[in-house]
Amino acid sequence: MELSARNQVKGTIREIKIGSVMAKVRVEIPGENVINSMITIDSVEELNLKVGDEVFAVIKSTDVMIAK
Amino acid sequence: MELSARNQVKGTIREIKIGSVMAKVRVEIPGENVINSMITIDSVEELNLKVGDEVFAVIKSTDVMIAK
Amino acid sequence: MELSARNQVKGTIREIKIGSVMAKVRVEIPGENVINSMITIDSVEELNLKVGDEVFAVIKSTDVMIAK
Amino acid sequence: MELSARNQVKGTIREIKIGSVMAKVRVEIPGENVINSMITIDSVEELNLKVGDEVFAVIKSTDVMIAK
Amino acid sequence: MELSARNQVKGTIREIKIGSVMAKVRVEIPGENVINSMITIDSVEELNLKVGDEVFAVIKSTDVMIAK
Amino acid sequence: MELSARNQVKGTIREIKIGSVMAKVRVEIPGENVINSMITIDSVEELNLKVGDEVFAVIKSTDVMIAK
Repeated sequence: MELSARNQVKGTIREIKIGSVMAKVRVEIPGENVINSMITIDSVEELNLKVGDEVFAVIKSTDVMIAK
Repeated sequence: MELSARNQVKGTIREIKIGSVMAKVRVEIPGENVINSMITIDSVEELNLKVGDEVFAVIKSTDVMIAK
Repeated sequence: MELSARNQVKGTIREIKIGSVMAKVRVEIPGENVINSMITIDSVEELNLKVGDEVFAVIKSTDVMIAK
Repeated sequence: MELSARNQVKGTIREIKIGSVMAKVRVEIPGENVINSMITIDSVEELNLKVGDEVFAVIKSTDVMIAK
Repeated sequence: MELSARNQVKGTIREIKIGSVMAKVRVEIPGENVINSMITIDSVEELNLKVGDEVFAVIKSTDVMIAK
Repeated sequence: MELSARNQVKGTIREIKIGSVMAKVRVEIPGENVINSMITIDSVEELNLKVGDEVFAVIKSTDVMIAK
């Protein structure tokens, strides 16, 4: 299955912080950059996410801003 | 001025496609990754964005999904 | 590859309207409901979307509001 | 009052999980589909949402992706 | 019908620019502030939006960032 | 550094509620209006946000709906 959200950046999970209903997942991507993702704790469990996992940070293009 | 959206990934604009009210801005980031951004043509003009510009792709954490 | 966005509703594409950089994709889902999606024309081409295709409308939970 | 977000899918609340500042609301829609919504606990209180309520899941079209 | 998105700021439409599938709606709010909204041209037509209309700009809390 | 999100409304922080991973920030803007923002607790700490601070509520145009 392919997704219309074409921004898919490969990285490694460096931190997972579980909250009450949301969780923070910190992903390190190339160039010493970091992408933080806030997803539901349900998704963390269902995808069985763990520190060290290779994942993709996926972002819909309409959610990306530009700063200059 | 500092922004709460902490996902700010540095890159270079490789393509700008101007539509009727929206524009596509393609940004190359480290690791041969690409981030596409859909913003208003007003923003493209006001920031005076051009191919070759060094910019930041800025994303709110709640808009980032994880794929595994 | 599995996605953290767990809202994935199966339906059938009933209309595609190609704009200058964005496209509207109208998906009919069960119960005579309709979900409209605005995605880039690049995604329409790369996924080779056509009227009649069986697809999933995918939505991140933080983007869903409730009305009562 | 009418809203520009035209994706409004009727369903029934099957679960509410109250977190510290956010809450998860699980809505069952036709075709045995489920839509999860993450909203503020303030909204849950002000709308007085309860399991069993008939509600609408409301989604802006620019927040809907397509998977094929 | 009440909506979980509690950010509803009253204003007056000062400009509508119709694109190919999206439209820009510029709303003037108190304090000489302006809110721009990008919605589908379908919504502009179905709500029969016109310059001079009193409307509400509606924003989900998870889509609001803070700059300081 | 300038941002493509042109909706930047000045206001004053009236309440901060810290959750487990997310926080609610309530900002009073002109015209007795209120804008609620849900951001990460990391952002609250890194921007050192406090009640009484003058800040901007920043919103991408594609995230603004219209109600009439």
